[in-house]
Amino acid sequence: MQRKGTRIAAVMADVRSKIAARAYLPGTRLPSVRAQARAMRLSVSTVVEAYERLAAEGAVASRPGSGFYVAGPAAPLALTDIGPRLDRAIDPLWVSRQALETGAGSLKPGCGWLPASWMYEAGMRRALRALARADTLELTDYATPLGHPALRRFLCRRLAATGVEAAPEQLLLTESGTQAIDLICRYLLEPGDTVLVDDPCYFNFHALLKAHRAHVVGVPYTANGPDLERFETALREHAPRLYITNSGIHNPTGATLSPVVAHRVLKLADAAGLAIVEDDIFADFELAPAPRLAAFDGLARVAHIGSFSKTISASLRCGYIAAPAGWIEGLTDLKIATSFGGGRLAADAVLTALTDAGYRRHMEAVRLRLAEAMDKTLSRLQALGIEPWLRPQAGMFAWCRLPDGSDAAAIARTCLKDGVVLAPGNAFSQSQSAGDFLRFNVAQSADSRVFEVLARAIAAPP
Amino acid sequence: MQRKGTRIAAVMADVRSKIAARAYLPGTRLPSVRAQARAMRLSVSTVVEAYERLAAEGAVASRPGSGFYVAGPAAPLALTDIGPRLDRAIDPLWVSRQALETGAGSLKPGCGWLPASWMYEAGMRRALRALARADTLELTDYATPLGHPALRRFLCRRLAATGVEAAPEQLLLTESGTQAIDLICRYLLEPGDTVLVDDPCYFNFHALLKAHRAHVVGVPYTANGPDLERFETALREHAPRLYITNSGIHNPTGATLSPVVAHRVLKLADAAGLAIVEDDIFADFELAPAPRLAAFDGLARVAHIGSFSKTISASLRCGYIAAPAGWIEGLTDLKIATSFGGGRLAADAVLTALTDAGYRRHMEAVRLRLAEAMDKTLSRLQALGIEPWLRPQAGMFAWCRLPDGSDAAAIARTCLKDGVVLAPGNAFSQSQSAGDFLRFNVAQSADSRVFEVLARAIAAPP
Repeated sequence: MQRKGTRIAAVMADVRSKIAARAYLPGTRLPSVRAQARAMRLSVSTVVEAYERLAAEGAVASRPGSGFYVAGPAAPLALTDIGPRLDRAIDPLWVSRQALETGAGSLKPGCGWLPASWMYEAGMRRALRALARADTLELTDYATPLGHPALRRFLCRRLAATGVEAAPEQLLLTESGTQAIDLICRYLLEPGDTVLVDDPCYFNFHALLKAHRAHVVGVPYTANGPDLERFETALREHAPRLYITNSGIHNPTGATLSPVVAHRVLKLADAAGLAIVEDDIFADFELAPAPRLAAFDGLARVAHIGSFSKTISASLRCGYIAAPAGWIEGLTDLKIATSFGGGRLAADAVLTALTDAGYRRHMEAVRLRLAEAMDKTLSRLQALGIEPWLRPQAGMFAWCRLPDGSDAAAIARTCLKDGVVLAPGNAFSQSQSAGDFLRFNVAQSADSRVFEVLARAIAAPP
Repeated sequence: MQRKGTRIAAVMADVRSKIAARAYLPGTRLPSVRAQARAMRLSVSTVVEAYERLAAEGAVASRPGSGFYVAGPAAPLALTDIGPRLDRAIDPLWVSRQALETGAGSLKPGCGWLPASWMYEAGMRRALRALARADTLELTDYATPLGHPALRRFLCRRLAATGVEAAPEQLLLTESGTQAIDLICRYLLEPGDTVLVDDPCYFNFHALLKAHRAHVVGVPYTANGPDLERFETALREHAPRLYITNSGIHNPTGATLSPVVAHRVLKLADAAGLAIVEDDIFADFELAPAPRLAAFDGLARVAHIGSFSKTISASLRCGYIAAPAGWIEGLTDLKIATSFGGGRLAADAVLTALTDAGYRRHMEAVRLRLAEAMDKTLSRLQALGIEPWLRPQAGMFAWCRLPDGSDAAAIARTCLKDGVVLAPGNAFSQSQSAGDFLRFNVAQSADSRVFEVLARAIAAPP
């Protein structure tokens, strides 16, 4: 028989290791003294003593009459407390927060959307004037559970043009593309489920999946889509429930899925019972449409996401899900439970803007302007020794490698002091293997000060 | 030693009971064969055989190379599959779905909002015309992480008038009041945490908390607030993390919290380390302000929620959280992760409408009209033998008991066939003890057909 001191230490070590492994999250009640004693075949008094000592050192807190709780931040789900603690400069939320928060004086080559002056402002003004004359229901009432019927019908016709065949009953409007993905995660995932993402991928997928307590596995992304061998291995080793990706213009790489990779991904997904979310919010920036997983798959296991925040306006929130028919009822219940349906107004404004003759011309001009900005930005970056990983066919993003030995996170911190918001590579990388990459938004890189500040930061000693 | 057949049956019974108890939810991977064999001290071959038999009967599914999974609906989180399976007529989502879905020909005395013609339509039209002339950023860009600064400052001044002292940095804008509560649940709750609700309470709290996999405990609600003795017992027995309630005008009862109960609830919450969400979306309907938990507590452990969907417009989505200062950073991260911030447009329209001189006059007229509708509706209900539980001081809701022996769910189903949407009591009740209650919205009960259809349904044999 061990000494009592040793036995107490064993209980303390057991609890501490479970806290460290996040098997016991902050706020969790410890097993009752009695249950713990039974489980470890120790006396109740030993466990009481161990718990008291853990309380004294602050690892747990006692609530009189109710037991012992794991101490920690007030918020068990503070995102920064989940998973390995990264430098805040490469935290998945760092780029979003900086890009959303910084004022008009800042330059934002790291941000994920177009400058306000590139958006469909004229169409928005027309849509708002039309709304001011809309009927009472449109102005004041809730939308139906699936959302604005005329917009859903219009979106179905629009999707059909890219080969995605969805009935209006398979289309659910949401407040944003992000909310759309969030609803699907709520619908499909249990805490602890594994989700595949591209490495690199849009950083907010990491933040969102943390909020769902998912186990995230990265698959290296190539110029044509995910690395198929690694994808297959990940399916075999991790039995993921879901894969989240972009097909058209991949964020952050600007790569485009090839038909052969699309087909192979779907075949593997079929065999493994894997669901897929295809986030397609950059579709309208494409010059020629890339293959869509949702088109090949016929919305059997792929949900297709879109929004209008990158083209018409981010100030009015509207996104959508085209999903397998069997998912819609559950997704709608979850939408009502967590956001009580939607409004009519944003959907109405989007429909007016999309069907306005000016929208097509506006987007043609934006695509041309982006192509010019891409050329110009890549030359200016190459002059600083910053090389694109590939030359994107379209879109606003260029995924670029810094000169040898440069630390993107350190450079981002330095540039932020000079009012330039960058997007350091490891914010996008599950494996943290993109420490020498930056994602540039070519539409936000017109000002030569971006390159001056960047040149100084690269030249400075670390 | 047991016979092998008995041992196999034991494994099958163990798995089945865990599925029934929802310890294993649909989609969950079963423990590996090896782990299960170790845990039950049985041979691997016994467990393999048991799992295969469970697969043959469809309780679990085998995924080659990855193990066995609990079968079930494609969606582990289909809300109707969580908890006891209720009659769809008293499912927490039934009332919302019916009220949102049914067309213009239907009457909706069960719905939770005003008729479109009672809303602030004139103010909305003015706000939209003003927006059509707003500057580019307002029309096209994302909001800052906390949301529209001028609206937040205005709301702080408005809250101060009811005694809730919040700095603008403690105020976070959301897409809706429901999203506000959802964010707080995401911030505070782990799956399995206990949450207290009033019994009866707003039915969507049940739907929302199911989506969070919370363990919900109901506390009977009295004319002055929660039953304090039962509240104290619930704290002692269940160590809840959160209590969700309305202070001003309680949904569905129309009751008002008294100062003495408010004070006592906060004292108990302090002692138990309980967080509170005070959903105050009906504040503008009050004639005289009731005590607010957030005012008494000084936003130490109470978060205060508001929205504009019940007064200005439900077509434009905008809500807010006034929260303890320490929660804001985490709530903001979660908001960005799950809905990528918000838009500027809805907040701008709300600010324009609220600061318009017409809003105060509009709400005065609405309150007067509601008081008249309350009198008239209660008399018409009393003529049918339907008695109010109490006479509300203000608001749109009357919580009423049907004549002896009536089944509110059956009556709601009957009336729905005649185009009248009712809100049956058990949709609001955790204990399912309100089977003879209906919630009436007096603003939606002007048409005499409501009472004709109701009279027929009550008179009909069940």
